[in-house]
Amino acid sequence: MYRPLSIKPLPTLFGLAGGLVLILGILATASIAEKKGDRVYTFNDEDELLQPLYWDIPSNWREWVYVGTPLTPNELNNGKASFPEFHSVYIHPDHFKVWKRTGAFPDGTIMVKEMTSVGSKQAVSGSGYFMGEYLGLEATIKDSKRFKDEPGFWAYFSWTREGKPRAKTTKAEPAGKCNICHQSFAKDDWVFTQYYPVLRAAKPGR
Amino acid sequence: MYRPLSIKPLPTLFGLAGGLVLILGILATASIAEKKGDRVYTFNDEDELLQPLYWDIPSNWREWVYVGTPLTPNELNNGKASFPEFHSVYIHPDHFKVWKRTGAFPDGTIMVKEMTSVGSKQAVSGSGYFMGEYLGLEATIKDSKRFKDEPGFWAYFSWTREGKPRAKTTKAEPAGKCNICHQSFAKDDWVFTQYYPVLRAAKPGR
Repeated sequence: MYRPLSIKPLPTLFGLAGGLVLILGILATASIAEKKGDRVYTFNDEDELLQPLYWDIPSNWREWVYVGTPLTPNELNNGKASFPEFHSVYIHPDHFKVWKRTGAFPDGTIMVKEMTSVGSKQAVSGSGYFMGEYLGLEATIKDSKRFKDEPGFWAYFSWTREGKPRAKTTKAEPAGKCNICHQSFAKDDWVFTQYYPVLRAAKPGR
Repeated sequence: MYRPLSIKPLPTLFGLAGGLVLILGILATASIAEKKGDRVYTFNDEDELLQPLYWDIPSNWREWVYVGTPLTPNELNNGKASFPEFHSVYIHPDHFKVWKRTGAFPDGTIMVKEMTSVGSKQAVSGSGYFMGEYLGLEATIKDSKRFKDEPGFWAYFSWTREGKPRAKTTKAEPAGKCNICHQSFAKDDWVFTQYYPVLRAAKPGR
């Protein structure tokens, strides 16, 4: 028997609500998946940190929030700076969001530092320092569970391998190599905000 | 008369579909609103470009994709560099996405350059140049409709006002002031990619 289709108001309303719940559910699941227990980064079973492009949910640090670029040219550091040439520093956007709201770096914060050579010292805009090629890649993570024994819960990493391609994974550096300088000289919670105008300007109450 | 609620399969299905269409419609509208005819930026009736924070849909350039930081210290430029000190350059994420896919800057591309003083020349990491305070803010836009008479369709803007706060709006600079150097010396479509490793590395086919 043929019956013309009829839209019943009440069941339709239920359906609409159902559709909404369905979509919200999908969005919520995606958001939870992205958080992975509040940690964006991935360590392997050997406690090595993977480069962000290889995380469970891969991320490109060059699209994170840029915070500043100290420059320590080799020529001004007896030919061998601790951090060669330009250091572009980035913070993960999730953690920048929290910094803007609270002025604090949340547990799970990750920042990446990418080093670049001085490629040219003269351009049409004047004399100075112009970026050349990528040299190195480092990171710092604040994690009170994973690094409960590190000062301030911050650990430091380098994927740079001199004369070789960057490593895909790397172990935390000993506290004496990196943490001690951050602990002693960094202005805000182990982070050198004194050299990072983006972070200073975004800090609430400033 | 009391009737127990009953979920009718067919109307419920219609409702679910309706809910889905409703949500997709909202998302599509939001996406279109964000594009504003493929232009993210806002000009006022006097053809002045607003700072991104004042656009119809405000945007914070410090959260765009960072492409590089040339440094032309005043001391290396007779005390007065054309672009004082550090220049942090950003590209709008929509246009970076197109660059990654095509290796070209789409119509409507906007890049911002923010200038920062050298704040310190010595830090625990070595001798060099460390960012101080914000000095200036500039932008470039490629727009074949609005700037059909500019070489390459690129126009250049500065919100910097010496000794005064940054302007909220600003007119395009004459082609002879900015465009001519970009046209003559920039490697890729009026953009100095030779100094921007992020753009070089993201260019397809490299």
